[in-house]
Amino acid sequence: METKKIPTYVDGLDEALGGGIPEGHVVLVSGLPGTMKSSLSYAVLYENAKDRGAKGLYVSLEQTRRSLESQMETMGFHVDAVRGNLHILDVGTIQKELGKSATKPWMEFLRRSLQTKKEIDGIDLVALDSLEALEVLAKFQDRRTELFQFFEWLRDLGATSLVLTEASPEAPFLGLDQSQARKDEGFLADGIIEVKMHPFSDVDVQRRIRVVKMRGSNHKTGFYALLFEDGRFQVTRVISP
Amino acid sequence: METKKIPTYVDGLDEALGGGIPEGHVVLVSGLPGTMKSSLSYAVLYENAKDRGAKGLYVSLEQTRRSLESQMETMGFHVDAVRGNLHILDVGTIQKELGKSATKPWMEFLRRSLQTKKEIDGIDLVALDSLEALEVLAKFQDRRTELFQFFEWLRDLGATSLVLTEASPEAPFLGLDQSQARKDEGFLADGIIEVKMHPFSDVDVQRRIRVVKMRGSNHKTGFYALLFEDGRFQVTRVISP
Amino acid sequence: METKKIPTYVDGLDEALGGGIPEGHVVLVSGLPGTMKSSLSYAVLYENAKDRGAKGLYVSLEQTRRSLESQMETMGFHVDAVRGNLHILDVGTIQKELGKSATKPWMEFLRRSLQTKKEIDGIDLVALDSLEALEVLAKFQDRRTELFQFFEWLRDLGATSLVLTEASPEAPFLGLDQSQARKDEGFLADGIIEVKMHPFSDVDVQRRIRVVKMRGSNHKTGFYALLFEDGRFQVTRVISP
Amino acid sequence: METKKIPTYVDGLDEALGGGIPEGHVVLVSGLPGTMKSSLSYAVLYENAKDRGAKGLYVSLEQTRRSLESQMETMGFHVDAVRGNLHILDVGTIQKELGKSATKPWMEFLRRSLQTKKEIDGIDLVALDSLEALEVLAKFQDRRTELFQFFEWLRDLGATSLVLTEASPEAPFLGLDQSQARKDEGFLADGIIEVKMHPFSDVDVQRRIRVVKMRGSNHKTGFYALLFEDGRFQVTRVISP
Amino acid sequence: METKKIPTYVDGLDEALGGGIPEGHVVLVSGLPGTMKSSLSYAVLYENAKDRGAKGLYVSLEQTRRSLESQMETMGFHVDAVRGNLHILDVGTIQKELGKSATKPWMEFLRRSLQTKKEIDGIDLVALDSLEALEVLAKFQDRRTELFQFFEWLRDLGATSLVLTEASPEAPFLGLDQSQARKDEGFLADGIIEVKMHPFSDVDVQRRIRVVKMRGSNHKTGFYALLFEDGRFQVTRVISP
Amino acid sequence: METKKIPTYVDGLDEALGGGIPEGHVVLVSGLPGTMKSSLSYAVLYENAKDRGAKGLYVSLEQTRRSLESQMETMGFHVDAVRGNLHILDVGTIQKELGKSATKPWMEFLRRSLQTKKEIDGIDLVALDSLEALEVLAKFQDRRTELFQFFEWLRDLGATSLVLTEASPEAPFLGLDQSQARKDEGFLADGIIEVKMHPFSDVDVQRRIRVVKMRGSNHKTGFYALLFEDGRFQVTRVISP
Repeated sequence: METKKIPTYVDGLDEALGGGIPEGHVVLVSGLPGTMKSSLSYAVLYENAKDRGAKGLYVSLEQTRRSLESQMETMGFHVDAVRGNLHILDVGTIQKELGKSATKPWMEFLRRSLQTKKEIDGIDLVALDSLEALEVLAKFQDRRTELFQFFEWLRDLGATSLVLTEASPEAPFLGLDQSQARKDEGFLADGIIEVKMHPFSDVDVQRRIRVVKMRGSNHKTGFYALLFEDGRFQVTRVISP
Repeated sequence: METKKIPTYVDGLDEALGGGIPEGHVVLVSGLPGTMKSSLSYAVLYENAKDRGAKGLYVSLEQTRRSLESQMETMGFHVDAVRGNLHILDVGTIQKELGKSATKPWMEFLRRSLQTKKEIDGIDLVALDSLEALEVLAKFQDRRTELFQFFEWLRDLGATSLVLTEASPEAPFLGLDQSQARKDEGFLADGIIEVKMHPFSDVDVQRRIRVVKMRGSNHKTGFYALLFEDGRFQVTRVISP
Repeated sequence: METKKIPTYVDGLDEALGGGIPEGHVVLVSGLPGTMKSSLSYAVLYENAKDRGAKGLYVSLEQTRRSLESQMETMGFHVDAVRGNLHILDVGTIQKELGKSATKPWMEFLRRSLQTKKEIDGIDLVALDSLEALEVLAKFQDRRTELFQFFEWLRDLGATSLVLTEASPEAPFLGLDQSQARKDEGFLADGIIEVKMHPFSDVDVQRRIRVVKMRGSNHKTGFYALLFEDGRFQVTRVISP
Repeated sequence: METKKIPTYVDGLDEALGGGIPEGHVVLVSGLPGTMKSSLSYAVLYENAKDRGAKGLYVSLEQTRRSLESQMETMGFHVDAVRGNLHILDVGTIQKELGKSATKPWMEFLRRSLQTKKEIDGIDLVALDSLEALEVLAKFQDRRTELFQFFEWLRDLGATSLVLTEASPEAPFLGLDQSQARKDEGFLADGIIEVKMHPFSDVDVQRRIRVVKMRGSNHKTGFYALLFEDGRFQVTRVISP
Repeated sequence: METKKIPTYVDGLDEALGGGIPEGHVVLVSGLPGTMKSSLSYAVLYENAKDRGAKGLYVSLEQTRRSLESQMETMGFHVDAVRGNLHILDVGTIQKELGKSATKPWMEFLRRSLQTKKEIDGIDLVALDSLEALEVLAKFQDRRTELFQFFEWLRDLGATSLVLTEASPEAPFLGLDQSQARKDEGFLADGIIEVKMHPFSDVDVQRRIRVVKMRGSNHKTGFYALLFEDGRFQVTRVISP
Repeated sequence: METKKIPTYVDGLDEALGGGIPEGHVVLVSGLPGTMKSSLSYAVLYENAKDRGAKGLYVSLEQTRRSLESQMETMGFHVDAVRGNLHILDVGTIQKELGKSATKPWMEFLRRSLQTKKEIDGIDLVALDSLEALEVLAKFQDRRTELFQFFEWLRDLGATSLVLTEASPEAPFLGLDQSQARKDEGFLADGIIEVKMHPFSDVDVQRRIRVVKMRGSNHKTGFYALLFEDGRFQVTRVISP
């Protein structure tokens, strides 16, 4: 009855996760702007597509497919190499489709797009970039309940999901004041991976990563350095510079 | 007239509690995501069921029974070994039942489910996972009053209850700003057990546990390390790593 | 014209108070959950009843009389020894009475209960446990004004009152953010005794007590350790462990 | 055209004030519960009455005249010695008067009482204890504007006024969060004298005083120790204990 | 096309400003109560009037002309020496005028007063004491927009303006929580001069000044000591006492 | 498919950016008042116009064109040298145009102005000074959605945009409390360049700059000193003074 684990293909991260991400989990990837959470999430879908042909869907709500692909090329990913397995659904496409059928609510349309995609091509991995953009577009009336239902729905979909968010799970941990609403996604999700900028002097800043929560995994609890070069992320023990 | 104490079967925790949890208490198990409060609470019901045949009911409002059991198997618990004594009531089952009788309010339905369960099998221990999910589902109008009444009702039920929550009792203790509403459960409950992540360097983090409050017990007041391996928790004095 | 002082019978506390609590004062006993403010307040009524036959009334709004007595027995108090002088009025009894006369508002009923009790048996000391539970039950419309009037009424009653509350007077002192409403009881009361948990390492925590304010007393201003063993509290100078 | 200064008769305070309080000023005496701001303000009126026959009016909105006098006797003041010059107007008396003429608003009644008192006996010094109680009683609709007008009115009255308040002017100074409304009295007043409890170890606390603002005075800016014994306050340089 | 600079006549301040205040600027002088911002602003108008006959208008919304002049005399300024060039418009005068024409809104009246004054006598420098009092009196409906328009209007008037305010620009700089509304004046103004009390021990406090922002000036960015004696301010490098 | 990079012509900044600003990006330039973000943004447009004839449009919503040009002349820029390529659209001009056609909403007018400008002269670079002033003028009803759409529109325009704002991206990074609304622009933008004042003693303050986020760039993450002399900015490694 043990759950299969999805590898991230990021050196060191699978070990910190206790063997990967349990299949079917909805996992928050949280971090402030500039923490490379988009690139990291893209990398997970990209490597799964390239190495084992896993079907990925990247829902890009903050930029167009064209802009995202251009960004990822610049970062060292070969977008064309995975075009068959890694699809990008962007906000422009969604809005255009919605225009034709203006009566359907946004969330329903998103769900139906994912469902259709799953039925035609299959979906193993979903990245949703980002929860904040989703809030702007879907205009939640009752954020907590709608997130609860959407996360439930994602679990029923059967895919493993990465949901990108700026809401730092570390905030209450370090004493920052954060409205309760902001923390709801924390208990609603099955896992939380946090990326943060850690200042280790008054001028130098290092990217760090931590597995905050992962249901059904005996994961590590500490912070690691998150390094990036030429399209490859690496998670290593922190060495003072 | 002294109250019977329920053992937790966690090495070191019963001693910190001053001999276990007084029977009939409503006890908060509080901690942020990733503090293993679900696993710890499950462990208490699991060991009570295995060792002394105590009847347990785990109300799982954040995940399905299937997902919870899979998670607990992975963590090293033998779910089948206690199936006769430890039942799981999950949100899916509740929602399905509610669908048939849509006019009954959620809280009334939950109470009736527990009452029926008690009359048929008996209930010695209840875990409610979590208070936050309960809020989403029950849509409290007057949170404070409804919690007050629900906790009273749990006491009348006669079982000993563990109520899981993210609201840290430590918050006001360390100077975090937390809306007053968040603290209500603190004075409404008979006891509070807190689990937290303690950073002891800028990269390492250790799980710690503290008995914050336990009516009618001369409990310890300090923090202990909370360790976990192969389905067994252990509470020990903190040793600097 | 000097005011008579009521002894607390707690070693060291009367000295810190400058000789006891001035008769007729409304005194807040403030502290977060787990600071033993219920036990401490009970101890004051208990010892006054046992030693000098003072009439005490403990208004228990968070638990039943039965539960409170059981808790106090466990802590080492001999409840039966003071049954003639120390009465407990609990929320269940009040609610039952109120049921019969549903039109009377809660606060009016509480006042009438105290008034009747005073006329029949006399009341020297009142403990109200707690202000937060009172708020839930009485459903204040204008908290500030109603507290102002209730404290005035308590003074007119002639008894010396201990009002238990979680609102820490230390909060603004240490820089915590606390809504203004929470501090109202501070200036409305004649005295404030604060109990807190003081962390003196990252694992050890000690109960401490301080007389924050006591009108008409030249009281001490510092913190003391609050110790408890076998039904007896002790207030001593703080010795580093 | 220089303004006359009113002495406080507190050793060391007049020097810190740059020679006393400029006549006609509205001065806030601010401090949390337990800082002895009532006793300090009473002392100023008491000594002015005793030494130079100045007419004082102490408006006591938090306790009765009887209770205040009893408190002051206990602290070492000889209330009877100044009864001809120092009058106390308490909330009970005001409420009783108001009962007879229920249509008059509270603030108008207070103003009229002061005006009448001035016309009959003269008023040199007013203490208003406290601004918070005044807010409860007067039920301000537009706090800022009504305070602005009341302070203007006090200045027109010609007396020198001490207005006691819990709102610490130091809050924004030390980084505490305080709603803007709380600071209004700061710029509306002509002067601010702050009394605070200063913790100089984790157990010891010392009363300190500072002249925060005094229009038209070249006052000192630092903190001093505020000592009290047998009805006499003393302001001294801080000596580490 | 370079802008003319207005001297402050304060030793050291013109140098910190990069040569004075650019003519026509709206400059905030910000500081908590007791930072002498009224005296400092008065000094700038006073010295400009005395030395070069510049026409100044001091709009005193917190105290009467009489009270302000008395205060300034006490501080060492010779009010009569500049009576021809430095006029004071106080709240009493405005209110009296407004009484005659009750239909005109407050802000419109203030603008018309300044406009008339400019047409008759000319205005080179305006001090508005204070923004907080203006808010009370003008009863802004949409603070941000009305301030935006008022500052624009002040610029069109052609005079150089000092607007006194308690809202510290340093707040967000040091981590204080301050509602966004409070910071609007920061970006609306052309310059910000901040005065603050700096505690350099737990008893000593020193006045400090900093040019936070000055459009079109290559000003200094650090803090200086602000000293005052006999009607003359001095800005010097900070020397540890 | 790699994106072209726009040089900033600021020594050291292009290197920190990983080669300039990706063409077509909407980049926030954030910093509190006094951080020289207007001058820095002007410098980027100015040098691009002077060196490579790039068409720039500076939308000045906080001051008039005349005032901005005068400010820039004083700072050492030769405004006339780029008059053909660098245009300034100021709030006065917009308001005047709007007056003629009062029915058109503000945002629509701004968009049409930019569109027209682009069709006639072309626009390579836009600076919008500032987001806060835009909010005042455009009177957003739903800030988040309208910003989302405006940033999308700016991207469609094809120009590279610098949007000046006071909202510090560092706030949540350092633990400041900031309403969530304030952070929206962070995830909506393609890049964030932050300028801040860094206190390196209690009197000295240094301007520092950091590339917080830049989609599609492997930028540096640390802080650099931002120096300015005679119309030229310079970004260097921080050297302790």
